[in-house]
Amino acid sequence: DFLSALDEVRPAFGISEEELEQCVQNAIIKFAPFVERILSDGQLFIDQVKNSSRTPLVSVLLHGPPGNGKTALAATLAMSSEFPFVKLISPESMVGYSESSKMSAINKIFNDSYKSPLSVIVVDNIERLLDWVPIGPRFSNFVLQTLLVLLKKRPPKDRRLLILATTNEKSVIEQMGMSDCFNSEIYVPNITDLSSIDVVLRELSLFNEDERSRVLDKLAGQVELKIGIKKLLMIIEMCRQDVDKVEKFTNTILKTYRKSDLDNLEIEFD
Amino acid sequence: DFLSALDEVRPAFGISEEELEQCVQNAIIKFAPFVERILSDGQLFIDQVKNSSRTPLVSVLLHGPPGNGKTALAATLAMSSEFPFVKLISPESMVGYSESSKMSAINKIFNDSYKSPLSVIVVDNIERLLDWVPIGPRFSNFVLQTLLVLLKKRPPKDRRLLILATTNEKSVIEQMGMSDCFNSEIYVPNITDLSSIDVVLRELSLFNEDERSRVLDKLAGQVELKIGIKKLLMIIEMCRQDVDKVEKFTNTILKTYRKSDLDNLEIEFD
Amino acid sequence: DFLSALDEVRPAFGISEEELEQCVQNAIIKFAPFVERILSDGQLFIDQVKNSSRTPLVSVLLHGPPGNGKTALAATLAMSSEFPFVKLISPESMVGYSESSKMSAINKIFNDSYKSPLSVIVVDNIERLLDWVPIGPRFSNFVLQTLLVLLKKRPPKDRRLLILATTNEKSVIEQMGMSDCFNSEIYVPNITDLSSIDVVLRELSLFNEDERSRVLDKLAGQVELKIGIKKLLMIIEMCRQDVDKVEKFTNTILKTYRKSDLDNLEIEFD
Amino acid sequence: DFLSALDEVRPAFGISEEELEQCVQNAIIKFAPFVERILSDGQLFIDQVKNSSRTPLVSVLLHGPPGNGKTALAATLAMSSEFPFVKLISPESMVGYSESSKMSAINKIFNDSYKSPLSVIVVDNIERLLDWVPIGPRFSNFVLQTLLVLLKKRPPKDRRLLILATTNEKSVIEQMGMSDCFNSEIYVPNITDLSSIDVVLRELSLFNEDERSRVLDKLAGQVELKIGIKKLLMIIEMCRQDVDKVEKFTNTILKTYRKSDLDNLEIEFD
Amino acid sequence: DFLSALDEVRPAFGISEEELEQCVQNAIIKFAPFVERILSDGQLFIDQVKNSSRTPLVSVLLHGPPGNGKTALAATLAMSSEFPFVKLISPESMVGYSESSKMSAINKIFNDSYKSPLSVIVVDNIERLLDWVPIGPRFSNFVLQTLLVLLKKRPPKDRRLLILATTNEKSVIEQMGMSDCFNSEIYVPNITDLSSIDVVLRELSLFNEDERSRVLDKLAGQVELKIGIKKLLMIIEMCRQDVDKVEKFTNTILKTYRKSDLDNLEIEFD
Amino acid sequence: DFLSALDEVRPAFGISEEELEQCVQNAIIKFAPFVERILSDGQLFIDQVKNSSRTPLVSVLLHGPPGNGKTALAATLAMSSEFPFVKLISPESMVGYSESSKMSAINKIFNDSYKSPLSVIVVDNIERLLDWVPIGPRFSNFVLQTLLVLLKKRPPKDRRLLILATTNEKSVIEQMGMSDCFNSEIYVPNITDLSSIDVVLRELSLFNEDERSRVLDKLAGQVELKIGIKKLLMIIEMCRQDVDKVEKFTNTILKTYRKSDLDNLEIEFD
Ligand SMILES: Nc1ncnc2c1ncn2[C@@H]1O[C@H](COP(=O)(O)OP(=O)(O)OP(=O)(O)O)[C@@H](O)[C@H]1O
Ligand SMILES: Nc1ncnc2c1ncn2[C@@H]1O[C@H](COP(=O)(O)OP(=O)(O)OP(=O)(O)O)[C@@H](O)[C@H]1O
Ligand SMILES: Nc1ncnc2c1ncn2[C@@H]1O[C@H](COP(=O)(O)OP(=O)(O)OP(=O)(O)O)[C@@H](O)[C@H]1O
Ligand SMILES: Nc1ncnc2c1ncn2[C@@H]1O[C@H](COP(=O)(O)OP(=O)(O)OP(=O)(O)O)[C@@H](O)[C@H]1O
Ligand SMILES: Nc1ncnc2c1ncn2[C@@H]1O[C@H](COP(=O)(O)OP(=O)(O)OP(=O)(O)O)[C@@H](O)[C@H]1O
Ligand SMILES: Nc1ncnc2c1ncn2[C@@H]1O[C@H](COP(=O)(O)OP(=O)(O)OP(=O)(O)O)[C@@H](O)[C@H]1O
Ligand SMILES: [Mg+2]
Ligand SMILES: [Mg+2]
Ligand SMILES: [Mg+2]
Ligand SMILES: [Mg+2]
Ligand SMILES: [Mg+2]
Ligand SMILES: [Mg+2]
Repeated sequence: DFLSALDEVRPAFGISEEELEQCVQNAIIKFAPFVERILSDGQLFIDQVKNSSRTPLVSVLLHGPPGNGKTALAATLAMSSEFPFVKLISPESMVGYSESSKMSAINKIFNDSYKSPLSVIVVDNIERLLDWVPIGPRFSNFVLQTLLVLLKKRPPKDRRLLILATTNEKSVIEQMGMSDCFNSEIYVPNITDLSSIDVVLRELSLFNEDERSRVLDKLAGQVELKIGIKKLLMIIEMCRQDVDKVEKFTNTILKTYRKSDLDNLEIEFD
Repeated sequence: DFLSALDEVRPAFGISEEELEQCVQNAIIKFAPFVERILSDGQLFIDQVKNSSRTPLVSVLLHGPPGNGKTALAATLAMSSEFPFVKLISPESMVGYSESSKMSAINKIFNDSYKSPLSVIVVDNIERLLDWVPIGPRFSNFVLQTLLVLLKKRPPKDRRLLILATTNEKSVIEQMGMSDCFNSEIYVPNITDLSSIDVVLRELSLFNEDERSRVLDKLAGQVELKIGIKKLLMIIEMCRQDVDKVEKFTNTILKTYRKSDLDNLEIEFD
Repeated sequence: DFLSALDEVRPAFGISEEELEQCVQNAIIKFAPFVERILSDGQLFIDQVKNSSRTPLVSVLLHGPPGNGKTALAATLAMSSEFPFVKLISPESMVGYSESSKMSAINKIFNDSYKSPLSVIVVDNIERLLDWVPIGPRFSNFVLQTLLVLLKKRPPKDRRLLILATTNEKSVIEQMGMSDCFNSEIYVPNITDLSSIDVVLRELSLFNEDERSRVLDKLAGQVELKIGIKKLLMIIEMCRQDVDKVEKFTNTILKTYRKSDLDNLEIEFD
Repeated sequence: DFLSALDEVRPAFGISEEELEQCVQNAIIKFAPFVERILSDGQLFIDQVKNSSRTPLVSVLLHGPPGNGKTALAATLAMSSEFPFVKLISPESMVGYSESSKMSAINKIFNDSYKSPLSVIVVDNIERLLDWVPIGPRFSNFVLQTLLVLLKKRPPKDRRLLILATTNEKSVIEQMGMSDCFNSEIYVPNITDLSSIDVVLRELSLFNEDERSRVLDKLAGQVELKIGIKKLLMIIEMCRQDVDKVEKFTNTILKTYRKSDLDNLEIEFD
Repeated sequence: DFLSALDEVRPAFGISEEELEQCVQNAIIKFAPFVERILSDGQLFIDQVKNSSRTPLVSVLLHGPPGNGKTALAATLAMSSEFPFVKLISPESMVGYSESSKMSAINKIFNDSYKSPLSVIVVDNIERLLDWVPIGPRFSNFVLQTLLVLLKKRPPKDRRLLILATTNEKSVIEQMGMSDCFNSEIYVPNITDLSSIDVVLRELSLFNEDERSRVLDKLAGQVELKIGIKKLLMIIEMCRQDVDKVEKFTNTILKTYRKSDLDNLEIEFD
Repeated sequence: DFLSALDEVRPAFGISEEELEQCVQNAIIKFAPFVERILSDGQLFIDQVKNSSRTPLVSVLLHGPPGNGKTALAATLAMSSEFPFVKLISPESMVGYSESSKMSAINKIFNDSYKSPLSVIVVDNIERLLDWVPIGPRFSNFVLQTLLVLLKKRPPKDRRLLILATTNEKSVIEQMGMSDCFNSEIYVPNITDLSSIDVVLRELSLFNEDERSRVLDKLAGQVELKIGIKKLLMIIEMCRQDVDKVEKFTNTILKTYRKSDLDNLEIEFD
């Protein structure tokens, strides 16, 4: 039957394993309950594609602020499906492509997926695939129209496809009329509580026990913490170079936290 | 005479049967009276083309919110005509086409139709054929001008043509000056009553009798239900994976119904 | 002399007779006095071109709402001139042409006309020749500039030319700075009185005497009727398929008339 | 010396006599004092170019409403100079040219003029040479920049050039930054008095003495007459076809005069 | 050493002498103190380039209303430097160049200058080099970006460059972000006093002593005189053709002066 | 191990030493404390790249007003890293490149850097690389999208990269959505105190002791001094040509200081 036929077919299809692992260079740290819930919800979509013949196409959008782990989560889910066809569509592999080469590359991956009974495609960083820039705005309508069709195009008979897309710019999705292309949306939040930071600090062993509790004491009672996991990892490594790691880490986090509207660490001189 | 000549000619013309059936993958469920009325009204236009030599061109636009079955209905009508030439013009078969290839493909289908005494052309998803995007707006004026002429161009002597077009974006049709191109418009509504949902649930056997009546009890008295058949089918299949199907279905419908302005199921984390 | 030389030259020049007759598929019904006045005024311009050597170029614009017979009237006038060169420039014969092919095709017809002592050119549907769309607006400036020059360019010595142009969008003509290109403008109105409808009904024999008088009784006293001859013909043929033609015709006209701002017959479901 | 050298050189340079005469098909009628003043002022510029070595380039712009004789006057002046090089740059000879062909053609004529000791170039209908359209506005910046340089570029040593340019759209000249390119501007007005009309009527013998005085009586006392010579000639020839020429002429002039804001003769039906 | 090495190198580099002299056809008349001050200030920049190795690039912008002598002054300064490499970049030598040919031509002159120990480049009429037009505005961003880099690019070791640029449109320089490209700006004013006019009239011998004093008397006490030297020369030559030169000159100057906002001499008819 | 492997690899990679030194033609004068702090902060980033395997990509933006030394500082830091791969991406080496050549050149340098275990890339003058102009604004979206990806793209396993970018137009960075691309930002201020000027004057020996103290006295008490080091160097060299250097320097600084909103030294005439 359909499912047993899978195992045999599998070797015939490529899986961009290396690329996908590159997306999760620093592993997935389970620093908050939502991390596990995103992973288990994702599993449900994988099951639906495996089991229901009435909905051969399921598409999901991961969205949220920059640097909070969307790409790493999508890649982790894709690899966990163990489908015979798992591919990544990413702007990083298309630097300098013309609009039409980009379109062809995207189209090829979708067409290849239609040959596998079960497939996952990760469509990473949609606004970058579209060459989108807020001024104008400008974007490649050619790539957009390609995605608007492919994200909704039913695979042929006896073929099923899960699409995991990511974006930092949910508003772009709406402006471009793409909302309609996704059956579900998963919001990936920033880190907003000290206990998450605590888990990450332990995992990366920046401090010893004593230092860590000093840091958490200093940070406790501060309000409106909001930081992506990617930036937190960068701050930790920066502080590792410093003589007074406790001081440096606390200050940097506090500075970031006080002007939470700025995206970067600003070094100023009086 | 004209009509008897039909049968012989027939085999000479292609009918894109497979493509058209692909559009009706989940059959047509007669969940509400309007479904049958659309089908019978469509039959009248088929008759007019067959019988009146004064109006050799009749063009009809099916419009309404996304995912309510426009494409499936147009395809069903086209196939039911049993005309010797029945073709689908669809963005899905033109992914990555340049403006001029798209134009040529469309033009070819119209020119081919002029060789058959009786033809139906389904022009699916006009705004996508136009590469339309609300920002700007941008669109292919080249394809637009082609359609503006072809949708009004009388077939040559002794040739007759029925055009069935679909769109999600009636306002696009107006902005583009295309309203003038259609002799009739058929509005395809969303599902807005529980009895329609009941019919669909029975048809797809998601629940047993008992479960179904529990679900309907829970939903009764809720207001402003508005859902497309396509999304309803997606929700049913999603719930099929869940342990507590009654709970999951009721909740999902209620969530959708409460925030009827959102197009997707949003999974949020606190 | 000049006029007698005509007859000999004639066979050397093409007349696009078939194309022009195609424009008048349903003949000209003289349903109102204005129909005859347009035809006789047109005759005056034909005479002026034939007789006056001081004005070797006369250009006339027929304008008015869509579907009221402009193209059929222009074609009828052109054919009635019996000039040796009578040609149609129409968007329908240029589907998918590039801007420059369109320009060449137009330019060739004008240059050919300069070889005939007497010529008529019908320039049909100017806004479509310009690839005009209200959004933007966008249009082909290349074709526009070509027309702006050709519509005013005096034919060479001993050559005379009558230009009959049509448009649905008088405002386009103004916005494009083309008003200056026409010596005269003829407004073609919609049908606004029952007696015109009566003439058309008789001509097409939709009803017997009795039915027709019932229909006119029902419609009498209704206000603000406004319908193009083309749509009236479409409604008549649609009703011909129906069992109760009287009922269907009356209702459709009344619906159209009550919402005279809509361009199409809308079929709605409650 | 310089002036005597002229005669010998002359045959070596082309004069586009035929084209220029084509611009004055209906001769120059001296219907008002301003006609003669324009001709004598033009003569002064011709003299300056002939005599002053300090100003080897003189450029003059004729502007005013459409159809008042600018092209005919510029062509007449150019021919009267009797310079060895007299050329016309006109949109009519460049129909369908690409921007760069147009630019080359213009540039060639200027470069050729630099080989003649004395030259006149008529640059007719600048806004049309620029492919200018009020919407946008759009225009060929390539041709514009070419003109902006060529209209100010001093001819080489011992070469002198008079430029006579025409436009209907003085505001275009200003918007495009071209005002700076002309040393002088001559305004060509419309006809605004009956005595001018009288002169023209006599010249063209439309009426006998008696008819003419009846016409003038009828028109006398009417206000705000404003008509271009070109349109007046068209009306006269139109009326020549009519049985009652007096009636037709008076009515057409009065209609035009009453709605002086319309550019064309509108034929309306009630 | 560096300076002595100059003389030998010199012959190896081109000087566009002819072109530069063409820019000063009517010589430099020292009609006001500012003329000499501009020339001496320019000399200081020439000295700085010759003597200081710390600032191998000095760039100066001459700006002011049209026709006041900017190009003639820049050319005069360039020639007076006696540097081995003196070149003119001017729109007049690039008529009809494509954006990229223009860019190449400009780039070549800069690259050639880097081979000479001491160079002057005159960049004439920047807004024209940019194909700038106020509507839009439109301009060649390709040429602009080239200039933005080249005007600031330090010559290689032991090479020094003086750039003299001119523009009529200081605001263009600012809008384009070019202000930053110039180390100094020199404003060239219009003529605003009678004594300057007196000097010019003497120099060109339009009048005899008596006539000149009559003219100056008539003009004395008039306010807000504002005229460029180029237009003054044109008026003088125009008047030279007239019988009553005193009358003509006074009137023309007074007319110009009264409507100082108009750029041209307008000839009007009542 | 990793670090010891470096020395061997080194010779295999290019360092654009000459180009980088060209950026620091006038050396780095330590005229204020912030100069040293920028240099030491830069060193920390160099260390982080050398030591932390978790953050293989660190990107820093130097921003501030024009001419304050950003490029010289970035080049100095890059050279001080002593990494085996140190390259400059600068608009000056890409004059006249097409968008795609520019993109290729940039892409090549990044791809080359991925072959070195440790690399520094200086991305100089981002707004110029983007062909950015404030009007519109216009810019190369192709180059922008390339940078948006490359500035965030993680180098492959065991490769590490430090990016030092500069810009005068921080607002451009924000409008273009590039803020997200930098981990840190360093603001480079203008000179705002006399003691900094004093240091620079000593270093360049423009005055003797006495003159310098006279200058400082004159300038003392003046408010809101704001000058870039590049312009200060230009003024010093300009004054060196003058007879009265004290007077000239004081006046120029005061003039600049009084109209601190102007970017250039304006020479005016009354
Ligand atoms: N719980 C987690 N979820 C996601 N990423 C995690 C988690 N824990 C650690 N990481 C690490 O954090 C980094 C997240 O980076 P990632 O590129 O996925 O973020 P992103 O949201 O896609 O960023 P961008 O908005 O720039 O695309 C990865 O290196 C990943 O290994
Ligand atoms: N009564 C019905 N009418 C239409 N479709 C139905 C009906 N009952 C079941 N279906 C199924 O619902 C689905 C409707 O999808 P369809 O693609 O036609 O919607 P659509 O309105 O064209 O969507 P979109 O707006 O995305 O183009 C089809 O799979 C069809 O088989
Ligand atoms: N009096 C009439 N005048 C014009 N057409 C008539 C008349 N009577 C009958 N007809 C028929 O009506 C139709 C008019 O269609 P036609 O294409 O000329 O309209 P149109 O105004 O050009 O439409 P559109 O605005 O779409 O270009 C023709 O089939 C013609 O034969
Ligand atoms: N006094 C006159 N001045 C100019 N043209 C005259 C005069 N008398 C008669 N004519 C005739 O009037 C016509 C004027 O047409 P012309 O093409 O020169 O007008 P125009 O102003 O250039 O028109 P447009 O604005 O369309 O370019 C010519 O046929 C010319 O022979
Ligand atoms: N003092 C003067 N300064 C400059 N030009 C002078 C002077 N005296 C006489 N001239 C003459 O005046 C003319 C000035 O013209 P020039 O082309 O230099 O003006 P411009 O400001 O560059 O004009 P444009 O704004 O059109 O570029 C030249 O012919 C020059 O010989
Ligand atoms: N402390 C300093 N910091 C930077 N540059 C200095 C310093 N002291 C002297 N300089 C010299 O000042 C000049 C600074 O010029 P640089 O091109 O680096 O400025 P910039 O800010 O990059 O200018 P732009 O905004 O035009 O790109 C160099 O010649 C440099 O040698
Ligand atoms: Mg990501
Ligand atoms: Mg559809
Ligand atoms: Mg028509
Ligand atoms: Mg003209
Ligand atoms: Mg100049
Ligand atoms: Mg710099």
